[in-house]
Amino acid sequence: MPLNNTNIVSAAQTKFGKLEGITIREMFAEAVDKATVEAGIPKKDIQAAFIGTFIPEMLIHQGHTAPLLIDYAGLRGLPATRHEAACASGATALRAGIMAIESGLYDTVLVAGAEKMTSVSTNKVTEALAAAADDEFESSIGLTFPGVFAIAAVAHMQKYGTTEEDMARVAVKAHYNASTNPLAQFQKEITLEKALTPRYIAWPLKLFDCSPISDGAAAIVLTSNEKAKEYTDLPVKIIGTGQASASMDLCNRIELTSFESSVKASKIAYEMAKLGPEDMDFAVVHDCFTIAEIIASEDIGFFKPGEGAKAVREGITARDGDKPINPMGGLKAVGHPVGATGVKQAVVIYKELIGEAGKNQVPKYDTALMHNFGGTGATCVVNIMRRADA
Amino acid sequence: MPLNNTNIVSAAQTKFGKLEGITIREMFAEAVDKATVEAGIPKKDIQAAFIGTFIPEMLIHQGHTAPLLIDYAGLRGLPATRHEAACASGATALRAGIMAIESGLYDTVLVAGAEKMTSVSTNKVTEALAAAADDEFESSIGLTFPGVFAIAAVAHMQKYGTTEEDMARVAVKAHYNASTNPLAQFQKEITLEKALTPRYIAWPLKLFDCSPISDGAAAIVLTSNEKAKEYTDLPVKIIGTGQASASMDLCNRIELTSFESSVKASKIAYEMAKLGPEDMDFAVVHDCFTIAEIIASEDIGFFKPGEGAKAVREGITARDGDKPINPMGGLKAVGHPVGATGVKQAVVIYKELIGEAGKNQVPKYDTALMHNFGGTGATCVVNIMRRADA
Repeated sequence: MPLNNTNIVSAAQTKFGKLEGITIREMFAEAVDKATVEAGIPKKDIQAAFIGTFIPEMLIHQGHTAPLLIDYAGLRGLPATRHEAACASGATALRAGIMAIESGLYDTVLVAGAEKMTSVSTNKVTEALAAAADDEFESSIGLTFPGVFAIAAVAHMQKYGTTEEDMARVAVKAHYNASTNPLAQFQKEITLEKALTPRYIAWPLKLFDCSPISDGAAAIVLTSNEKAKEYTDLPVKIIGTGQASASMDLCNRIELTSFESSVKASKIAYEMAKLGPEDMDFAVVHDCFTIAEIIASEDIGFFKPGEGAKAVREGITARDGDKPINPMGGLKAVGHPVGATGVKQAVVIYKELIGEAGKNQVPKYDTALMHNFGGTGATCVVNIMRRADA
Repeated sequence: MPLNNTNIVSAAQTKFGKLEGITIREMFAEAVDKATVEAGIPKKDIQAAFIGTFIPEMLIHQGHTAPLLIDYAGLRGLPATRHEAACASGATALRAGIMAIESGLYDTVLVAGAEKMTSVSTNKVTEALAAAADDEFESSIGLTFPGVFAIAAVAHMQKYGTTEEDMARVAVKAHYNASTNPLAQFQKEITLEKALTPRYIAWPLKLFDCSPISDGAAAIVLTSNEKAKEYTDLPVKIIGTGQASASMDLCNRIELTSFESSVKASKIAYEMAKLGPEDMDFAVVHDCFTIAEIIASEDIGFFKPGEGAKAVREGITARDGDKPINPMGGLKAVGHPVGATGVKQAVVIYKELIGEAGKNQVPKYDTALMHNFGGTGATCVVNIMRRADA
């Protein structure tokens, strides 16, 4: 059965980037204020909070982040839980929010995510991020995330003929889209030549194939059908949600050119929504690396296996193409404060679906898919959203 | 409205203690096997998993624990999410499981928790645990957890005349109860004199006032009313659930002799169940320190503020008393592998309510309350459970 009671009625993010002098609680409170009081939703209406953070323990020696963050955001006392699934932390918090509403336990809840990553060295960040892979079998022997996605890229190149230039085109598109997004970390177009600059991070992935280290927060308010009317005439309904897992270690995967968790989560979400890829006007997918966007575009069924690169080359995934992907700029150019990312993806879809994406508005915007991916793909969450009047 | 569709149909824990040579995934898999196949519930019936772990990032450099653990437990592919709320991590996973069932998204889910704590030095554990307090304002200046509860103990002593001997009696009771619990870390009675040995950790708290550092895992299976019949004639229903938060830092608390999150979470759970403290046959509360049990027994309404110590002195909270508390031995003597604790509390209640607690069986066992508490009390979860035929 499709979900039928969960509505997004407001959504906001902070600027993403190196936010010097701003703590995680300050970023979080800014996103919450924008998504509540500044959107006409009194904080007293919020009954519970579901928070995504990935690894504040290692980055800022802070666990138990949910009560800490909501206290600073003026919501002390509420039930507040932290959800962690590496880069999919935000989307797992969102799913908890969906279940909270659908269960009838709560009418109106906050879903938010945040990460403060730039206050420690890059080495320290790399070590922290590596905790999202299998420490016992893989990350402890030196496989960090650029290496993981380099392996996927090589497999995709070998099997389908995808090229470094194809991946570079994903970066060019991301920077182009982000150039008109005032909240993006990089608001500057890049040329294909620049994207191909041979500064290898893990061959064949170069600097411009990688999403950056970022600070940032995002927040949305979910509410029931009955309550939604109090806040907006134009809610966005979440009509399908799927989550799946896979082995953490790559050595136990059958396939490296596709992520089984993405395929499975998409299938569940489409079935729940009783819709297919052909019904999606656009998608926001997890482009932590350029190859990840290409693979995701195939895994969610927008293109056949091996045809994701061609779709980029032909402009099909461009903002004005037939199947726009990451129309605001994605993780690649907007930034990737890990715990915030899954929630930020919902923010992007909300803005697009209600027609308030400004210069980044896609041409068709009734129904869209979000795809948030954790670590090596051991977690994937896919949600399908549709404007209530569509 | 009371919850009406969530049933516990099996529950298990591993031995708690210093489990040398056993990894977190092995402990986890053992608990899951016991709660599923060994209890007659095929793993294929499990549709989703909700996992509590507190701080594997700092203890074993491992984040993203949910997919990792379920893979090793033979459940690869399932949607699996990790929930973290310091020492209340397990209970927040349980609440996510409750909402999953009540929402109708799933019929049968696994709720489990685990922590591997003894593979690093005590200093490293103390540093990791300190991440559960406010790093910016309190833990960074040296306030670790024995200090936090020492402050609460001093306040309780000053306001109500509670003594070190009263706290020691909680320890004696815990060890007595655990002496017949084969899964406990300490299966040995202690005398009052021994409990009073002046080996101070943080005055007035002594060694025997503190729960130990432990490894362990616990798991339960939740299912809907319809499915419950397939597994057991005697399910335990979760009829009320409450969660609340408070400031992380003690300096922003109005009261130090009571935890506002416990009072609030209890109130919500009682109201949902349409029951009061007088209807509870026993309770399992979060006795990370002996003073924590005394305060919890007041916060859940079993005794008036300031009368918790008297209840211990008079044997009211003993296993054969009028209001037994922690009849299996509590965190204090059974051990406290942090992420497992909240789930283990549900295991204890399940065993008692179905009359399978062996030598630790309480005399009356229709309805009980569980109280799981995170960090400085910034999170508290209270659940009320009743045997289906009660």
